[in-house]
Amino acid sequence: MADSWRGQHTDGEAEPADADTVASVGEIATLRRIFPRLPQSASTIVGPGDDAAVLAAPDGRYVVTTDMMIAGPDFRWAWSTPEDVGWKAAATNLADVAAMGAVPTALVVAIAAPFDMPVSALESVADGFREACAALAPGCGVVGGDLSVSDAFTVAVTAFGDLQGREPVLRSRARPGDVVAVAGTLGQAARGLRALFADAVDENGVPDAVRAADVAARVPEVSVQRRPRPPIEAGVAAALAGATAMLDVSDGLALDAGRVAEASGVRIDLRSDALGPDPATALSGGEDHALLACFPSEASVPRPFRVIGAVLPRDGDERRRLSVDGRPYDGRTGWDPYSGWDGAGG
Amino acid sequence: MADSWRGQHTDGEAEPADADTVASVGEIATLRRIFPRLPQSASTIVGPGDDAAVLAAPDGRYVVTTDMMIAGPDFRWAWSTPEDVGWKAAATNLADVAAMGAVPTALVVAIAAPFDMPVSALESVADGFREACAALAPGCGVVGGDLSVSDAFTVAVTAFGDLQGREPVLRSRARPGDVVAVAGTLGQAARGLRALFADAVDENGVPDAVRAADVAARVPEVSVQRRPRPPIEAGVAAALAGATAMLDVSDGLALDAGRVAEASGVRIDLRSDALGPDPATALSGGEDHALLACFPSEASVPRPFRVIGAVLPRDGDERRRLSVDGRPYDGRTGWDPYSGWDGAGG
Repeated sequence: MADSWRGQHTDGEAEPADADTVASVGEIATLRRIFPRLPQSASTIVGPGDDAAVLAAPDGRYVVTTDMMIAGPDFRWAWSTPEDVGWKAAATNLADVAAMGAVPTALVVAIAAPFDMPVSALESVADGFREACAALAPGCGVVGGDLSVSDAFTVAVTAFGDLQGREPVLRSRARPGDVVAVAGTLGQAARGLRALFADAVDENGVPDAVRAADVAARVPEVSVQRRPRPPIEAGVAAALAGATAMLDVSDGLALDAGRVAEASGVRIDLRSDALGPDPATALSGGEDHALLACFPSEASVPRPFRVIGAVLPRDGDERRRLSVDGRPYDGRTGWDPYSGWDGAGG
Repeated sequence: MADSWRGQHTDGEAEPADADTVASVGEIATLRRIFPRLPQSASTIVGPGDDAAVLAAPDGRYVVTTDMMIAGPDFRWAWSTPEDVGWKAAATNLADVAAMGAVPTALVVAIAAPFDMPVSALESVADGFREACAALAPGCGVVGGDLSVSDAFTVAVTAFGDLQGREPVLRSRARPGDVVAVAGTLGQAARGLRALFADAVDENGVPDAVRAADVAARVPEVSVQRRPRPPIEAGVAAALAGATAMLDVSDGLALDAGRVAEASGVRIDLRSDALGPDPATALSGGEDHALLACFPSEASVPRPFRVIGAVLPRDGDERRRLSVDGRPYDGRTGWDPYSGWDGAGG
């Protein structure tokens, strides 16, 4: 395959450690090399190494979310390093926990890797998990995992969080009169991906690592596509400020704002002048993992949230869940892995 | 591919619903069809449909384990129905929760399916999850999930459990003088798999659904390979009876008993006359997901556990962690996905 983990190694000398593959070293020895690199969780009662981990849930509840990333539909090895892949797998799940108003506490990680993947590449994936937790959610760590064989490199993460005694912030309780606000970037990851698809492919449209390095040097948004930085702490700030609804913008602002409107039985109107210099991409592009929240009009909207719209009553037309500057939104609404993925494109 | 989900459909007429694939229907509509079929969890505070679920942890802790199954290394579509795959993915994870002495409360399930997989096949996977939870762990259900695209059908499950105020039963606290006991079958899943590899392949060694049906009718252990029935309630019974150590026998009794001995710093001696008519397969074969536990000699070993050996002090020879009838065990010790998988064999 042109787009394998080797994509990152085409112009580097093989390191001695690269001689060790998951097949030659075996599951147990591979795990022994990976685990010391993973971040530790402050919520651990029983850590990795037994049939299961035991975690603390001080308020008698815990938040749970799961998300899978697969080489091909979700990322390309020619465009992302193993560290980037670990970072993004952690960050996307941390964002879902934050969107409930919870503090991320722990992750479990199941990885399926091709036979011939170097153990050093898996160590780098582990480094990405550690770096993301340290930067975005200190105290959160990996408490368990599984390692399997697959031609398609796959990482499945389940993330946990602590509500610290607060009610979870759902997507279904926005009320007419609320303001709509967002924390984090919008559309940057999509612009980064667009630049990669445009200029980081070879003559046959195959993702190319050398060209990707050129694009990344020129287009700063490529780093947001590779390593999104969702504003994890903003989730708790929103909950403390009385947010009525919140979610992680993973499939595009328009689609995700429409989900809040649908679940809450309201209409959301966004202001294009609040969406930056490229409102169309801000509306359609996912993967920045910003947090979208609604606040009562009397609430003080906490930093780093910025107001981008208002919650209105649903009018007679059921399709009018989402409007921009008062007009029904009819642009591309987001990303569906089954209809959105162009297999030929990478 | 010869061994795709179509393996089960080669001699049946296409049902009208099979016209719907995950690609033609899309992620959201597919999830809408799957979720009503999934079992519900009695521990749910916030269920599927938001960024994350919220679950109850009445004693302030929760048990977590994760395990992945992939078409090819872990099962073959020609040999297992989609219901079987859902059942097994649930059962293996429930067994890990039970092995801590906990009651399974909930699962999250991430599935990656090929583009052309019928939605009806995914509905059947969901049915398998529901049937396994109903049969093995009533009250346990699926509280969240993710659906992605992959050429390699992959199901990653994370399971949760409640310790009900008890201490978790680790693998590291067996003491010399304890008795060693097991609940559940040993070696049957391996005998079933051996029969499939022997007689349920075509002239080229490719798994064959029609021949598998013949083998299954003749060899009752094939049903244990397809739908293991770990004794989930025995996990709590062991904890209540004072078990000092416990684990799920997933990689073979010899390997897993050796793990208890290693973690506890003891030697375990098994009695071959307690291992049934085929002690060699009982020792080497995994995937029945029996529970192996150690009990103080003064404890009353609870049903359905049966005594199969004793815990002894570790002697000078570090390799002597495991013996059978007093002699060091030197047979095949178990299953490693990287060294144990014969890609050419299916």
